Amino acid sequence: MNPASTTAESHVMTQPSRPGAATHAPRTIAVVGGGQLGRMLALAGAPLGFSFRFLDPDPSCPAASLGTLICGDYHDPAALASLAHDAEVVTFEFENVPAEPLAALAARVPVAPSPRSLAISQDRVEEKRLFEACGMEVAPWAPVDDAASLVAAIDAIGLPGVLKTRRMGYDGKGQRVIRARDEALAAHASLREVPCIYESLVPFSREVSVIAVRGADGACAAWPIGENCHRDGILHSTVAPAAIDAAAVALLQHHVFGIMERLDHRGVLTIEYMQHGDRLLANEMAPRVHNSGHWTIDGAVTSQFENHIRAIAGLPLGATSATGHTVMVNLVGTVPPLGALLADPSVKVHLYGKAPRRGRKLGHLTVVATDAADAARRLRELEALIDGPLSPAA
Amino acid sequence: MNPASTTAESHVMTQPSRPGAATHAPRTIAVVGGGQLGRMLALAGAPLGFSFRFLDPDPSCPAASLGTLICGDYHDPAALASLAHDAEVVTFEFENVPAEPLAALAARVPVAPSPRSLAISQDRVEEKRLFEACGMEVAPWAPVDDAASLVAAIDAIGLPGVLKTRRMGYDGKGQRVIRARDEALAAHASLREVPCIYESLVPFSREVSVIAVRGADGACAAWPIGENCHRDGILHSTVAPAAIDAAAVALLQHHVFGIMERLDHRGVLTIEYMQHGDRLLANEMAPRVHNSGHWTIDGAVTSQFENHIRAIAGLPLGATSATGHTVMVNLVGTVPPLGALLADPSVKVHLYGKAPRRGRKLGHLTVVATDAADAARRLRELEALIDGPLSPAA
Repeated sequence: MNPASTTAESHVMTQPSRPGAATHAPRTIAVVGGGQLGRMLALAGAPLGFSFRFLDPDPSCPAASLGTLICGDYHDPAALASLAHDAEVVTFEFENVPAEPLAALAARVPVAPSPRSLAISQDRVEEKRLFEACGMEVAPWAPVDDAASLVAAIDAIGLPGVLKTRRMGYDGKGQRVIRARDEALAAHASLREVPCIYESLVPFSREVSVIAVRGADGACAAWPIGENCHRDGILHSTVAPAAIDAAAVALLQHHVFGIMERLDHRGVLTIEYMQHGDRLLANEMAPRVHNSGHWTIDGAVTSQFENHIRAIAGLPLGATSATGHTVMVNLVGTVPPLGALLADPSVKVHLYGKAPRRGRKLGHLTVVATDAADAARRLRELEALIDGPLSPAA
Repeated sequence: MNPASTTAESHVMTQPSRPGAATHAPRTIAVVGGGQLGRMLALAGAPLGFSFRFLDPDPSCPAASLGTLICGDYHDPAALASLAHDAEVVTFEFENVPAEPLAALAARVPVAPSPRSLAISQDRVEEKRLFEACGMEVAPWAPVDDAASLVAAIDAIGLPGVLKTRRMGYDGKGQRVIRARDEALAAHASLREVPCIYESLVPFSREVSVIAVRGADGACAAWPIGENCHRDGILHSTVAPAAIDAAAVALLQHHVFGIMERLDHRGVLTIEYMQHGDRLLANEMAPRVHNSGHWTIDGAVTSQFENHIRAIAGLPLGATSATGHTVMVNLVGTVPPLGALLADPSVKVHLYGKAPRRGRKLGHLTVVATDAADAARRLRELEALIDGPLSPAA
């Protein structure tokens, strides 16, 4: 049985066309991927009158209950065609979506962000070149194609360093730290000798991320910058606004807006930075809504999800100002009982409907605090709540 | 074809059961009615991990795309059974839902608010008696069962007055103003001589509403009071917090909490008041989320929709404090172009996915303003936006 056509049938049964619907026909947004980012895009887009259609191989993906699911593979041209049929625009919720079928789709229906934004973010070497071309500081790096270029990269940049696959990495996957010269070839072999990038392992005091959005008319906006904390390579928490002086914020936004203009980007774009001394080094970008921007749902006038929808649908952008000092903590691997999470009346809970599994992002919590000190205190409270009294991390 | 079973089938196809789902099985909330209130309940409940099932005769009702729709009649026992099957709790989004089948359902699955809260709110005479029993002030009133009791009511209360059907009224429907004694019998006849209530037509300076919620553990909370403005008997705008002194607010909340305790109410309850001089007269109640509480989505820490879900699901209540001075304006009959509504970056748009029709609530706009004066200015701006430059009302 063709899963795409089955879903189309069930769609017809649950959402028949409305009589006299011309003036209020639902505008459909198609999303490649039905994970939690797609789910939160649908929750933000529904109040604007949009319907959603998702392509995902998992029939119980987080977005399935909030739109029509085309259950199929991201490479399947028939599934992609079903996804895009009659859609106003196609977008994606992760950057490892196959570029070729998406580019083919773009010939028939608007795709936003553009396949060019996607292609750059899929290749760490292209990404670094773009950062440098836009005047951004980055850690020393070199492309690695083989053993000889790896040795040359270590000679030029020094040790320790980190070897990363140019493509398909996320949440720390596809990375090897190299501390001694004799570890290099084994590290490359363990990454199957695919094309890589070697970067200096710069000690950093913190990570921050800029979430920005560019509209169809070229208007750009950025949310206050968030400071991120990771555990085991996975985002653990974000506090926004981060303590950064206004001039530095303006320079970061200037760079990010420049990148979006150069790419003719439409939608949200995220860039992560590592702070090394007083320098902020651009680390990587994602042409999409980002985990470090989840705080904007409860803590900004307009969330990253709503502004992504507005941008790709050609609508004016909403205000990106923060309503307080917001703390976001991820629920990874397990979810404490809902009643315990909600015991504090100011905690907002966002669950993604995913089965618990070690290392899996299952949801997040946010609290809008009154000031930076209150935010720091609320962060510790949320950590105690999710770690529990018996956890080794507590 | 049985519409209920069709919908059940399509549900199975789009949302198959998940393997190993014991610890994250979706908790289903069943809602009688699939209108905009059901839609906004689903948008608020999804982040808490709830799935939604709706019963509505209209296959393209506003909530249809955000859950499973049982397309059927509210009186149909089979449709109600399909709705309630496996649900954690059954709730309703309008108070004219038939009480008998719901009471039958309550024997098998929790129904919240209770059929008792529903029954009181379906009968204006019972409602007035409850208000008085709880110490609340009301306009002079008398029950009307026939011509003799109507004449007696006018004798006792005077003219002008308003004759209202005891049951099934909403948005000004089922009401006749009586200004002269000789209009009385014709007014009653035009209401088909059903049981009525006659109330003194008290001149009032404004209407305010208290939205409150009571949890499963008996905890009560209320949002700041909203001031409402009507056009043609339909709510036009709400501004919250209304300018009312703190002692009056405390007394209103005391009364509403008392009513909720007396009814053992669980969920949101709304009471509308008319201000007559310096007295606030209780007018009517609704055992549900209410149009005059829509501002809480953007303007309160926890919305009326989220707290209704929390209450009926036995979860702790969220904070009801306002984050600013919020203005809400209904979109009735027509919706201006989305791009025009969103041109101001601080305007939040909520569309219900309904076909335009004169007098129909199609959506609402909100703006969170900084203070009362700013709220008044924003209200005028929103009115100009929806009325348009050529509207007679502008």
